[in-house]
Amino acid sequence: MRRARRAAAAPGGALEDAVEAMRRCDVLAGVSAMEGGIERVYLSPEHARANAQAGEWLELAGMRAWEDAAGNIRGSYPGATEDAPVLVLGSHLDTVPDAGRYDGILGVMIAIAVVGRLHAHGARLPFGIEVIGFADEEGVRFGRTLLGSCAVAGTWDEAWLDLADGDGVTLRDALAAFGLDPARVGDAALDPARVVGYLEAHIEQGPLLLDAGRPLGVVSGIMGAKRFDLAMEGEAGHAGGVPMRHRRDALLGAATAALAVEQVALAEGVVGTVGEMRVAPGAANVIPGRAEFSLDVRAATDAERDRAWARIRALAVEAAGARRLQFTESLRHVAPATSSERRLSEAVEHGISVATGDREPMELLSKAGHDAMAIAALAPYAMLFVRCGNGGVSHQPDESVEVGDVALAIDAFEAAILAVAQRWQPLA
Amino acid sequence: MRRARRAAAAPGGALEDAVEAMRRCDVLAGVSAMEGGIERVYLSPEHARANAQAGEWLELAGMRAWEDAAGNIRGSYPGATEDAPVLVLGSHLDTVPDAGRYDGILGVMIAIAVVGRLHAHGARLPFGIEVIGFADEEGVRFGRTLLGSCAVAGTWDEAWLDLADGDGVTLRDALAAFGLDPARVGDAALDPARVVGYLEAHIEQGPLLLDAGRPLGVVSGIMGAKRFDLAMEGEAGHAGGVPMRHRRDALLGAATAALAVEQVALAEGVVGTVGEMRVAPGAANVIPGRAEFSLDVRAATDAERDRAWARIRALAVEAAGARRLQFTESLRHVAPATSSERRLSEAVEHGISVATGDREPMELLSKAGHDAMAIAALAPYAMLFVRCGNGGVSHQPDESVEVGDVALAIDAFEAAILAVAQRWQPLA
Repeated sequence: MRRARRAAAAPGGALEDAVEAMRRCDVLAGVSAMEGGIERVYLSPEHARANAQAGEWLELAGMRAWEDAAGNIRGSYPGATEDAPVLVLGSHLDTVPDAGRYDGILGVMIAIAVVGRLHAHGARLPFGIEVIGFADEEGVRFGRTLLGSCAVAGTWDEAWLDLADGDGVTLRDALAAFGLDPARVGDAALDPARVVGYLEAHIEQGPLLLDAGRPLGVVSGIMGAKRFDLAMEGEAGHAGGVPMRHRRDALLGAATAALAVEQVALAEGVVGTVGEMRVAPGAANVIPGRAEFSLDVRAATDAERDRAWARIRALAVEAAGARRLQFTESLRHVAPATSSERRLSEAVEHGISVATGDREPMELLSKAGHDAMAIAALAPYAMLFVRCGNGGVSHQPDESVEVGDVALAIDAFEAAILAVAQRWQPLA
Repeated sequence: MRRARRAAAAPGGALEDAVEAMRRCDVLAGVSAMEGGIERVYLSPEHARANAQAGEWLELAGMRAWEDAAGNIRGSYPGATEDAPVLVLGSHLDTVPDAGRYDGILGVMIAIAVVGRLHAHGARLPFGIEVIGFADEEGVRFGRTLLGSCAVAGTWDEAWLDLADGDGVTLRDALAAFGLDPARVGDAALDPARVVGYLEAHIEQGPLLLDAGRPLGVVSGIMGAKRFDLAMEGEAGHAGGVPMRHRRDALLGAATAALAVEQVALAEGVVGTVGEMRVAPGAANVIPGRAEFSLDVRAATDAERDRAWARIRALAVEAAGARRLQFTESLRHVAPATSSERRLSEAVEHGISVATGDREPMELLSKAGHDAMAIAALAPYAMLFVRCGNGGVSHQPDESVEVGDVALAIDAFEAAILAVAQRWQPLA
């Protein structure tokens, strides 16, 4: 069967599939809440429209499509037998504000392209395939990432229903408004006993493949990440009336802490980002009485990550003390470092070798989080990274990929799936 | 006539007037757009309600009340003759977000209390009195301060009609929605030839009277202030994927600039504040690509202020260069340093001496801007400062004054007006 697929994946066909996958990314880029940019958050009208569009593509690829209890769009392609387990392929369809068009989206389109190839040949594998377009990976709306993949992984937490978005709308109410039953989100979960594994293709979101001159890479694991809501509380006051030495300016405390994040990250070789900053009252002639900011810290191991956070925290507490501010912290999100599964990763490496001729595919540690992190609680995973252009930027409009790389990625992803099928069958 | 007024301002009466003035500040504190706090901005529903309430108090004090073409609430108390000029008393009724209840408001209530005393005795001065509750001093909504007092001073600029608030509503549309004619705001202007001068009572918004143990002070002048809209433009990117050394993090540039403002202000003996800070895209897992922030810088002289700004600017440009960011600046507002008029200030000093027995009233330079700055273009001004509690804080809920100090302020303000009348008459 692998040979038949390779024939189907001849250069011309692969390029056509890649052009179509990228065209679909363009189509979804137009499904946006933001004028002149891309923003598509969980349970929004754009989410519903994106699901409807993705559902059509899933059906075109020979799958039965449905929206699950968490709002993920899913498609199932039958296996050789009716009681066959499933190999899950996927990535996410939600975006950050003013996003690029490939982060998450491209992985779903690659999965659909590969199933479309199987369908075109009437191929049946010893397992069924389920393609999932996860509804929330970025966590923009409710401040909690991976909501869609956690529901599928069976790790959905009912307490999340009380999370509120920036307008005070709770996740519970947003689910109901979207037409979903907040009490039944857990129904989206897959049975671990029926899942062979999870494969995800994704843009690298970094410059390493670009710098190395390689189109594809295999992911060894995903960095552990912690995300905090931090705040400095001081005292508001008149921007003219209060002498400089009398001030308890919350923004200056937060500014010092943000610079400390960078200093520690550079010193410890980890990654730290303050991506949100809000000051109150927030007027040009009022000294900020409160500053709220986020911290995202990631490292190759949980121990390195926690050591970096301890240093950042100490510097923030010191900055607060020096300015008579009160520093508060709240852990918003924690994701332990995860490793991809060896045999699935070998299948991905094999796929890269088949597609590119590269005998020793490059291995990368993902600094970005992915749905695979959540799915790791359900099943073993492996990931394929696709080279980014523009210095590896993502989470912004300049995010880019080359069509030739996407063609190789489709070939590689298909070959990886066939390799899993070949290896898996003898074990059945 | 001065003696008669002093009798009316006996301790008991003054305390009652002060209690009533503070009660009225409490009433207006309830006219707010903010739950659990005070926020009342220009041309808002709360502005309309505050004007209606203040109009009732103006009438109770024997004045004819009306709302002018700029939305200021005004009351006129006739002079001895029909063609008598007017002495203008006033302060503002708008607030910053999460404001205190006395900044501006108390000055209007003191003016109303004093006219109420004149009215109670049927007193007629050689000039009429006009009390104005200015509609916009803080400039919160449209980012341009003193809109109300500029209209009265005859310095209203038609170009301001295109200013937009945070929701994109232009000043033009907001005026129309409030029931005012955007083309006729200039009609609010007083004729300089008919104005004797302007007196304003205001809380100090600083700790100097408190530290000196004095209830009242006379204002020598108002610091020159400049206000800028500043921005750092870098590159958004994934908080995990982009290595620390590849980043062009706009927030870190803005944080460095905010800390530089403090450093320069301390070194140069001026006052500098970053009161606004917004980052975009503004998500925990996205490196900020843009940070917009305000700068308010004030000094005793325009030269000192401009020297401090030049140093701040150089440090901001340097910070931007070090991080490969683009720094942009836009002057939002400039207010030259102004001096109070000598003879009016002597009348205020005389009033303070009469009320407190203090032969040498304390003189203060106002670091905060006031409506008097705008009125300076129309007529000479003088100001009376009232001691603040809580370390002199203002622009926040803890703003406070003592009722005994307010009683002394009403007595002093009345005595100052009577002194102006006595001195002015011989010149007529």
